[in-house]
Amino acid sequence: MDILLTGGFDPAERERWHVLLAAALAGALPQARLWVDDDAFDPARIAVAVVANPAPGTLQRLPGLRLVHSLWAGVDRLLADPTLPPGVPIVRMVDPAMNAAMAQTALWAVLALHRGLFAYARRQRERCWRAHAQRRADEVGVTLLGLGQMGRAVAQVLVPLGYRVAGWTLHPQPPAADGVARHAGAEALGPLLATSDIVVNLLPLTPATRGLIDARFLAALPRGAGLVNLARGAHVVEADLLAALDTGHLRDAVLDVFATEPLPPAHPFWSHPRVAVLPHAAAATDPRSASAVVARRLAAWAAGTTPARLPGFVDRGRGY
Amino acid sequence: MDILLTGGFDPAERERWHVLLAAALAGALPQARLWVDDDAFDPARIAVAVVANPAPGTLQRLPGLRLVHSLWAGVDRLLADPTLPPGVPIVRMVDPAMNAAMAQTALWAVLALHRGLFAYARRQRERCWRAHAQRRADEVGVTLLGLGQMGRAVAQVLVPLGYRVAGWTLHPQPPAADGVARHAGAEALGPLLATSDIVVNLLPLTPATRGLIDARFLAALPRGAGLVNLARGAHVVEADLLAALDTGHLRDAVLDVFATEPLPPAHPFWSHPRVAVLPHAAAATDPRSASAVVARRLAAWAAGTTPARLPGFVDRGRGY
Repeated sequence: MDILLTGGFDPAERERWHVLLAAALAGALPQARLWVDDDAFDPARIAVAVVANPAPGTLQRLPGLRLVHSLWAGVDRLLADPTLPPGVPIVRMVDPAMNAAMAQTALWAVLALHRGLFAYARRQRERCWRAHAQRRADEVGVTLLGLGQMGRAVAQVLVPLGYRVAGWTLHPQPPAADGVARHAGAEALGPLLATSDIVVNLLPLTPATRGLIDARFLAALPRGAGLVNLARGAHVVEADLLAALDTGHLRDAVLDVFATEPLPPAHPFWSHPRVAVLPHAAAATDPRSASAVVARRLAAWAAGTTPARLPGFVDRGRGY
Repeated sequence: MDILLTGGFDPAERERWHVLLAAALAGALPQARLWVDDDAFDPARIAVAVVANPAPGTLQRLPGLRLVHSLWAGVDRLLADPTLPPGVPIVRMVDPAMNAAMAQTALWAVLALHRGLFAYARRQRERCWRAHAQRRADEVGVTLLGLGQMGRAVAQVLVPLGYRVAGWTLHPQPPAADGVARHAGAEALGPLLATSDIVVNLLPLTPATRGLIDARFLAALPRGAGLVNLARGAHVVEADLLAALDTGHLRDAVLDVFATEPLPPAHPFWSHPRVAVLPHAAAATDPRSASAVVARRLAAWAAGTTPARLPGFVDRGRGY
């Protein structure tokens, strides 16, 4: 079976993925032949593409393509490629190591917002020694937007610390005994936000969630709330977010993702005193664990598992 | 029974403690009469002092004193008062709510050091979009100095996240199945530090721990390690810490406590790019829960429990 590794890697990154994925496939799927973009492979023989935001048009040139496996968890850019072959099933990365990384970043941001640690960093610059009131975790409402693999991983670390954790999804989800109060649908959002001190966005980017975090959304939060965006920049109307920060309605924002990445040098987020900018680093795919994940999925598929039953199978209509 | 509430409070703080402690005592120990410093109480009738760094000499003037309960967890300043009546038992604050606050601050600092989030804050000031490598939690060694109530509370939140957690104490402790590798004594410290990426200090301040974190201690850490001091400023030789930061041997320090507090305006820590200064705010005693703790302890004592069996009983020889 011929497999093509293709994507917008820098050379060292591609080499690392190539080596690790080849090693993982050698163990899990010995009949696999792994190619990379510059190799002299026969496009007609490529059955599987392992992709990381491939150049638009790449997959169209593979007439024998039967499966696409994304190395990234978010597939909004992949799905936005109009040349993406329509009938080919897509699987996206589901890796406990990546979920753990996301949970670490989200937990750090929630703790920093809850305990006012960004305010202490500002006071340090003014040499101001002043402690503020300390709330207990059970006095802090944390709302997770999205309860997919990452939202659930974040909930799992917040609940034992005592936070009041709620989860919001576009469509109703079955209840689960995980300490997370479930809310669903557009109408439930306003009342939920009114009781949210901290909002963590982990939604997939789809037409239904694009621009969700706008002036109306932010106005529904209590004064002094904090926003953590670890999903996609296009979830946020950036001008509305800046306005809410500047009036003081929103106290702090932790942003890992932006409408334009890298964040342009002139963007006001860089110098805003109440914005923490991360360079899309909340949860990188770790090639060590992710290579093993890909190899296991492809072996299961080669052994007859239908793509729709693989973890991370993408419903194109839903968009994730 | 007459109880004196005495300490270096500001007026609003004293009023809050007075109201909450009176309410808690009314429930737990109805025979208690609670006085504060300015009241016209009879010093000879005071049996219990509930103290928060009382003015030196205050307790000496209470001839009928039979128990001292500190509202703070650290009693190094109380014990340093040469006029402290020698025979009177001392109990210090042990409050799960305070331990939870300490665990939050420690966890925030460990996550920030592990994931390089202070480095991202520095890059933000330079408008630099650059992500660095992401380690898994199990690749990070976190050493807790001190495994008292607070050290154990911190361990309890770090272990489930997958960190390699070790605990160091001056004297050997019995093993416990809590995922924390136990090390004890001066000789064990060097080898342990050599495998520690992050050190969190939660030791009591005693003659044996004063100045422990000096040039030799810091040199024993691997290059790039991080230090979190949440205990007492006098544990650290500040000049040695600055030198280790300036050579780059130590990457970051999170400091909540200092040799002199408030930290003097001219102190180099304020403006050091790799020091996060907190204003002794890692874990404040919460008057709401702590009042109930004090009332329960005093009720148990009034009912006949010997002080040495109360949680938080202070061994004066040991110093905590």
